[in-house]
Amino acid sequence: MLHQLNQIRTFIFDVDGVLTNGNVLVTENGEQLRQFNIKDGYALQLAVKKGYRIVVISGAKSLGVQKRLLGLGITDIFLGVSDKIAVFNKYQVEHHLEPSQMVYVGDDIPDLQVMRLAGLAVCPKDAVEEIKEISHYISPKNGGEGVARDIIEKVLKIQGDWSDIKPSAHDGSL
Amino acid sequence: MLHQLNQIRTFIFDVDGVLTNGNVLVTENGEQLRQFNIKDGYALQLAVKKGYRIVVISGAKSLGVQKRLLGLGITDIFLGVSDKIAVFNKYQVEHHLEPSQMVYVGDDIPDLQVMRLAGLAVCPKDAVEEIKEISHYISPKNGGEGVARDIIEKVLKIQGDWSDIKPSAHDGSL
Amino acid sequence: MLHQLNQIRTFIFDVDGVLTNGNVLVTENGEQLRQFNIKDGYALQLAVKKGYRIVVISGAKSLGVQKRLLGLGITDIFLGVSDKIAVFNKYQVEHHLEPSQMVYVGDDIPDLQVMRLAGLAVCPKDAVEEIKEISHYISPKNGGEGVARDIIEKVLKIQGDWSDIKPSAHDGSL
Amino acid sequence: MLHQLNQIRTFIFDVDGVLTNGNVLVTENGEQLRQFNIKDGYALQLAVKKGYRIVVISGAKSLGVQKRLLGLGITDIFLGVSDKIAVFNKYQVEHHLEPSQMVYVGDDIPDLQVMRLAGLAVCPKDAVEEIKEISHYISPKNGGEGVARDIIEKVLKIQGDWSDIKPSAHDGSL
Repeated sequence: MLHQLNQIRTFIFDVDGVLTNGNVLVTENGEQLRQFNIKDGYALQLAVKKGYRIVVISGAKSLGVQKRLLGLGITDIFLGVSDKIAVFNKYQVEHHLEPSQMVYVGDDIPDLQVMRLAGLAVCPKDAVEEIKEISHYISPKNGGEGVARDIIEKVLKIQGDWSDIKPSAHDGSL
Repeated sequence: MLHQLNQIRTFIFDVDGVLTNGNVLVTENGEQLRQFNIKDGYALQLAVKKGYRIVVISGAKSLGVQKRLLGLGITDIFLGVSDKIAVFNKYQVEHHLEPSQMVYVGDDIPDLQVMRLAGLAVCPKDAVEEIKEISHYISPKNGGEGVARDIIEKVLKIQGDWSDIKPSAHDGSL
Repeated sequence: MLHQLNQIRTFIFDVDGVLTNGNVLVTENGEQLRQFNIKDGYALQLAVKKGYRIVVISGAKSLGVQKRLLGLGITDIFLGVSDKIAVFNKYQVEHHLEPSQMVYVGDDIPDLQVMRLAGLAVCPKDAVEEIKEISHYISPKNGGEGVARDIIEKVLKIQGDWSDIKPSAHDGSL
Repeated sequence: MLHQLNQIRTFIFDVDGVLTNGNVLVTENGEQLRQFNIKDGYALQLAVKKGYRIVVISGAKSLGVQKRLLGLGITDIFLGVSDKIAVFNKYQVEHHLEPSQMVYVGDDIPDLQVMRLAGLAVCPKDAVEEIKEISHYISPKNGGEGVARDIIEKVLKIQGDWSDIKPSAHDGSL
């Protein structure tokens, strides 16, 4: 996998079960709260700062998710998506990306076909079996518990981008 | 159990401890938040789409629960129920259902008697002892952590309904 | 412990770390949300219905906690308490209770002295060491994960009060 | 480590991943909820009462965090900090503190450099590897699950300050 990590310039993440633990807390008026991880947040904002593309594609449509991601510096956010392959293909063409430069992190059936299009398919430890079978790398971390941190850290370290310049960096909380 | 799974056309679920982890988060004004699982949600909306009946019977009365379930396409929702057997019997008669076609998933004493009426009684790994004793199948998943996904996936796979038509299906988040 | 269980008529519970998991979720305006367990709730409302006294004494002052407890039928609720021993003594005298009839469930230092006054001292598995050392019974359940259910079920079963009359009982969710 | 514990008069804590479990719950309007531990709260308010300095330095900027900490009696709260070393140095000079009197509890890269300045560097069990490597003591507790309680209890016990005067102390919930 080392050679592949060296080429990655674009990270694509699903939300539920990848950037979150796959649960939603539902209030009485039907609002949904999702749980994000601050250690993931640190890695995501650092990757943005170092010039990597961070793309989020999710079937869920949530203003809160969008605000959380914008706060980390992520702008390529596609929510409420019913056809992930169409979004992936359009993005790849518009930005002239090679599959070998792209890693896709997904956890469940709606990610199955689109994950095959990326050069590197990654999933959390608690992904469903069908996703594990087609993944090149199964992270030791569960969704929402550091799978994003794990793959970003691996890529940035191998490319010499993990260390931050400032003594006390943004801590990923905003 | 294989023969029974082949006949199931109706899934009946309790809410607390089955579709949720059995906890409620209480706000200062007494509002209760419940935690649902997105992987469960994927299976529930797929079962609805494939023509299975999904029925929810709960003693809890929560507008948020109702909204979450409606968002998944579930319409046969009975909340604030004090007599689950009466609701079960009325539903069975109205829809001309055979017990052998019905699976009931419960986790605690209020489900004990009504679960005996369904052809297949299923419970999460963390159900109380009395429920485990009368269940035909104890899922390896806890309540709110995939027990609904587990039994739905088993039934739909054996009946050839698990695969989705569209390349990128609804991900169960809404 | 069997003989003691046979005599218990009054249950006294701490809130944080006993009826909850010991965590609070804090919102931006400082509101605190606490997590309660539905299986605990089933046992608590059944004990009330069977004529046992349920008393809650907590240093926390939360309207949400009060509403949750009132919804289960509990009326002897003492919140914002700085001196638990004074509340205990006053309650014991007013209701002419013998220590041997009382069980106290606590988890941390503020419960240490008052727990010695009850005939039976019980704590969750994740109580602090000082509390474990003086407890007659350490439940296999953590706070907020069934310690209340565990001790109530033990007492009601030995006194023949565990079974409910109605076919489908209140499920403890309200 | 015994000699060092005997000298500590100032505790410095990061928030996310130290006083919390490192997760944030995000609402639809982007509000972030953080989870604090009541057993930590008991130790924090007791340390304040016994005359120890409690300092909180965090990159996060949250009014809810501030309210929670103020409720425990903590007043030296630095939030929204981008340069933790500058805050540390200024605080140390203003209060004439020796490094040997200070313990710093952190969990992730933004704490790495500043932790070296304190006489004692402590981290939770689930800190990142870089932090574990430079820590003098790795607590058996995770962030938000008692790491603050663990180090405060150790220091206060060795200095004879752990026992509370009043029979029923503040329970750390407010």
